[in-house]
Amino acid sequence: MPKRKASGKVTIALDAMGGDHAPEEIVKGAIAAANGTDGVQVLLVGQENVVREELDRQNSTGCVLDIVHADQVIAMDERPVTAVKEKRESSIVVGIELLKRGEVAAFVSAGNTGAVMTAASLMLGRTKGINRPALGAVFPFPTGPLLCLDLGANSDCKPTSLVHFAKMGSIYMEKIFGMESPRIGLLSSGEEDTKGSQMVQKAHRMLRKSKLNFIGNVEGGDIGSGRADVIVTDGFTGNVLLKLGEGLGEMLIGALRRGVAENPKLKEAAELLEPTFQSVISTLDYREYGGALLFGVNGNVVVAHGRSDADAIKNAIKTAKREVLQDIAGAFRG
Amino acid sequence: MPKRKASGKVTIALDAMGGDHAPEEIVKGAIAAANGTDGVQVLLVGQENVVREELDRQNSTGCVLDIVHADQVIAMDERPVTAVKEKRESSIVVGIELLKRGEVAAFVSAGNTGAVMTAASLMLGRTKGINRPALGAVFPFPTGPLLCLDLGANSDCKPTSLVHFAKMGSIYMEKIFGMESPRIGLLSSGEEDTKGSQMVQKAHRMLRKSKLNFIGNVEGGDIGSGRADVIVTDGFTGNVLLKLGEGLGEMLIGALRRGVAENPKLKEAAELLEPTFQSVISTLDYREYGGALLFGVNGNVVVAHGRSDADAIKNAIKTAKREVLQDIAGAFRG
Repeated sequence: MPKRKASGKVTIALDAMGGDHAPEEIVKGAIAAANGTDGVQVLLVGQENVVREELDRQNSTGCVLDIVHADQVIAMDERPVTAVKEKRESSIVVGIELLKRGEVAAFVSAGNTGAVMTAASLMLGRTKGINRPALGAVFPFPTGPLLCLDLGANSDCKPTSLVHFAKMGSIYMEKIFGMESPRIGLLSSGEEDTKGSQMVQKAHRMLRKSKLNFIGNVEGGDIGSGRADVIVTDGFTGNVLLKLGEGLGEMLIGALRRGVAENPKLKEAAELLEPTFQSVISTLDYREYGGALLFGVNGNVVVAHGRSDADAIKNAIKTAKREVLQDIAGAFRG
Repeated sequence: MPKRKASGKVTIALDAMGGDHAPEEIVKGAIAAANGTDGVQVLLVGQENVVREELDRQNSTGCVLDIVHADQVIAMDERPVTAVKEKRESSIVVGIELLKRGEVAAFVSAGNTGAVMTAASLMLGRTKGINRPALGAVFPFPTGPLLCLDLGANSDCKPTSLVHFAKMGSIYMEKIFGMESPRIGLLSSGEEDTKGSQMVQKAHRMLRKSKLNFIGNVEGGDIGSGRADVIVTDGFTGNVLLKLGEGLGEMLIGALRRGVAENPKLKEAAELLEPTFQSVISTLDYREYGGALLFGVNGNVVVAHGRSDADAIKNAIKTAKREVLQDIAGAFRG
């Protein structure tokens, strides 16, 4: 195994086999990160011959990219718990193992999200005082950054979990964005305290009693409105919302193109405006620009989008580096 | 009280006091409907002097618009159950009463949605075999019409309720859109049967056993994708989604305007494209173009958006007329 601690550099393990465009785009992203992101050393985890071949095919001259061999691959549609238990030699399990042993400071994967979460929970352990890990992401809205969690780790949540998500979210925005007292909103079906499911109403009462800067319920329309810095919700609602956001973005671009097809006069206008729209739409898809974070496990784990291209991978590595430098996992523990 | 049954016309009671822009826009919408929508007779329910004054201020010459006096008004933020019980002379209670007595064929309101639902459930009664009413709306996506329910009537749902929503949705799309075997999708956090909350997984198993054309789970991104004709979900998720859709629309228009402000060269392009975008964005806000329907009560009730303008009211009246002509409430009973 290659030496992994280059002094002063943050060493990050990257799942070379995970994602719809693995290993090509993953390796390309690793090369870009190694060339572009100062102070990062990337360790590619995957089938050595496959990764080596890909490195050779691409121009990686001068790049310091080490490979850690992992014999197996967990497919995108495998059942997480079974896959993690049975494929101990998979890139996901091997990558999390490296993190557990302290050989790397973070793990990044665009592979099976459930498997990454399962491996991280089982192998790294949960942060003290946190009963369920959550998937969170920061959306860079024009009104300011918004952290949303849970985006899909827990389909059923207890009110306590939502309070834990809020606490972690508050620490995160304080640490990473330097906010003094991040405004925490609870996603509900109305602003009044009495709105929402029984679970949400209970979480509301608990958040009211907490020391957090809880601003009360927020609604679907507040995502992007700038009213809150952190929005907490259960993983079912978070996942549905996230995918709706992505779908709507595609729908709008589709409508734009159809409009142009029907009326060629609009072509020039559309070309002028498309970048503006693409940038707004891409804010809805967190995984495009930096990956989601696994909150509540003992280690820095970044989950990139399954369809990540090289740019997305490069950004996910950047996110991981930031987590490490700010010692987010440590802040949650403390 | 004025005579209410003009032969061959559908008589619709309209809450003149409900909505952010009542009574001005409501009365204006009623005038437009009376002038434009063939075969509709609108009955304005509200404080007679207020409504009369508004009718005088606007040009209603030649319009046959009757007024039914209702002394009280339920405000937008009143607690539904209390308001309905205590304000028996409110426009909402009086309007539902007219519907119950068969003096009108439908009731339309842009007022307090909770109060309309409560009054309808308590006074009209629930459809046989349906344990909870649901709020549903048809979104006219470019990929075809999509009925979504529940959009907010029930924050907590049992699996049985979701099956009932699916049955009503199937009948509705068959009756109104002539679909032979509407495709029913269950909103979840993944396509696999095992994805989603415990409640959703149970509903999935029940839907599999039903005689409906159940296509399985659909995701947030399938809203607008054309995969399903009916998407069922609990009222909490439905409400959050709906408001996110509206919020995203506003965010995109905002981004367009900011883009133009920063780069005046884009002004002309934006002006050319704005109608295209507005039309896509307005598909996300069902209440803008026809109101939502209350499924599962014995009567035709249309809930218009609180911020409805005259056009929205006119469209809600049109929707109500369609319900009546297709005897939707009757089809659910049968």
